[in-house]
Amino acid sequence: MREFDLIQRFFDRPTKQRQVCLGVGDDGAVLQVPEAHELVVVTDTLVEGVHFRATDGAGDLGYKALAVNLSDLAAMGAVPVWALLNLTLPEANEQWLRQFSDGFFRLAMQHDVALVGGDTTRGPLCISVTAGGWVSVGQALTRSGAAVNDRVWITGTVGDAALALAERPVADIDSETRWLLNRLHRPTPRVGIGLALYGLASAVIDISDGLLADLGQIVRASGQAGAVIETTSLPLSPAGKSYPLEDRLTAALTGGDDYELCLTVPPSESDRMRMLSREAGVLLTDVGCITAHAGITLTQSGVPVAGPRRDGYEHVWPVARERDS
Amino acid sequence: MREFDLIQRFFDRPTKQRQVCLGVGDDGAVLQVPEAHELVVVTDTLVEGVHFRATDGAGDLGYKALAVNLSDLAAMGAVPVWALLNLTLPEANEQWLRQFSDGFFRLAMQHDVALVGGDTTRGPLCISVTAGGWVSVGQALTRSGAAVNDRVWITGTVGDAALALAERPVADIDSETRWLLNRLHRPTPRVGIGLALYGLASAVIDISDGLLADLGQIVRASGQAGAVIETTSLPLSPAGKSYPLEDRLTAALTGGDDYELCLTVPPSESDRMRMLSREAGVLLTDVGCITAHAGITLTQSGVPVAGPRRDGYEHVWPVARERDS
Repeated sequence: MREFDLIQRFFDRPTKQRQVCLGVGDDGAVLQVPEAHELVVVTDTLVEGVHFRATDGAGDLGYKALAVNLSDLAAMGAVPVWALLNLTLPEANEQWLRQFSDGFFRLAMQHDVALVGGDTTRGPLCISVTAGGWVSVGQALTRSGAAVNDRVWITGTVGDAALALAERPVADIDSETRWLLNRLHRPTPRVGIGLALYGLASAVIDISDGLLADLGQIVRASGQAGAVIETTSLPLSPAGKSYPLEDRLTAALTGGDDYELCLTVPPSESDRMRMLSREAGVLLTDVGCITAHAGITLTQSGVPVAGPRRDGYEHVWPVARERDS
Repeated sequence: MREFDLIQRFFDRPTKQRQVCLGVGDDGAVLQVPEAHELVVVTDTLVEGVHFRATDGAGDLGYKALAVNLSDLAAMGAVPVWALLNLTLPEANEQWLRQFSDGFFRLAMQHDVALVGGDTTRGPLCISVTAGGWVSVGQALTRSGAAVNDRVWITGTVGDAALALAERPVADIDSETRWLLNRLHRPTPRVGIGLALYGLASAVIDISDGLLADLGQIVRASGQAGAVIETTSLPLSPAGKSYPLEDRLTAALTGGDDYELCLTVPPSESDRMRMLSREAGVLLTDVGCITAHAGITLTQSGVPVAGPRRDGYEHVWPVARERDS
């Protein structure tokens, strides 16, 4: 099957996104630019054996490849508008492509994200998605604004994806496991929350590498020393209740792939955060605060406790410092 | 080596591009938006064994991965501003990364293109670059405006990359071969010409799949029937003079990877095209015209001749039609 046919058949779908002047099919895509906004662009690659298993469903992959990018846009406080897909495939398998594209567009349509272009090539399976959107001038959320005593909040529940990864595929999975697997394969990008955080959050990141690692990035980028996490405050999902508490805490602290947001908020804004949680219908939980003490300290009811040994996906804990060079 | 270190060490370099508000290191990049412009985005993937050989130099790969994208932006008439790099590598080889990034930034700096983000992952070698830029509202160049009797022009010389591909690596290559290899590995994106074509060209495409195939795309997208190419007009480079004329013509017509622009221009604008060629110091050649006859006809001094049998990289000749479905 020719590249052209692939793109036409599976990926050139109508969109309700009105900012698209020119989509799939030319040398590039053209998009309208709203006044008084800045462009935000993000990109992420999924590689077999690293980010997903060979046995994962194509529909889940298509969904997740877009979801992790929308999560990055959410962490920037941007409205998602368009995406590009670079898909490298060993073969042009129609069924795989149909499922993959269906998964992709299922999420894309929820957010009126238009797939405006891409590239389909033959080779070892590799999926890159680039997504773009807009923020009002100067209103992008970054990792670098956290101050000492700012509270650390997280959206949703954490550790679900890591618990799901620990599961072996079995024929007869229960509803809890199914729920956890869905959290792993079809994470919910917190786009609406991201858009509500300007003027409220001092720093935002999405939890892709694990809470400890990603909070560490906020601490580092903000030039702070450390943070405290109160482990009894961590929002754990009921679906994981059959696991030992220690496993659930380890998953919550070091498991990646949750794609919830971790943010810091001045303590004076706690009421507004609780109001936002109610209005948005999204769990928002205060799990700790930024401190002047080096590293991330875990507490249990206020008393320091030893943390899990496993590091987050890519970064060391205590807080990784920038290279000297 | 950690992903973070990779990005920091090789790809987080200073830029003179003043539109970057936030570059490498956060969840996304933020860019200023010029007034009364539209956003143009393009993307291309290079895969080993398909787009390059395992023996190709890393510096060339870095250069070319960006060049093919700047070529797409040129074909849209856009000013290039930023790029994202998705790099999947079997291992974090420092020497390879240094050469690759040096090649990438060599071209990036020529055009003040800022690398504002990306993703580095472990896996089979795969290189995707996404690039973006701006066009004045409504001034994007497309493939779809060609009219019957419009002249077909091309920039530079064609067939060089295909002749270079035919070469086997030898210890002692002559200067002609070196020149051809440079055309293959370090193509020149025609950014300046692209920016000068608004109001002059009716359709533009970059020649990545071969002149016949890419002109066919213009014909198809413009809803036209066909075109004529006068083979004696084709701009062949002196460096290929040791090859039989037939091989040079075949390379010029069907060889991909030249990354010159192919454009259609109303016949009344031929003088302006010649003036543009002089001013820009870039060879611009009238090689034929759009016709009402189906398919692309080759002529030799006005007399129809049989063409090369080999198709372009991805598309059929005569002109491929869109799928019925």
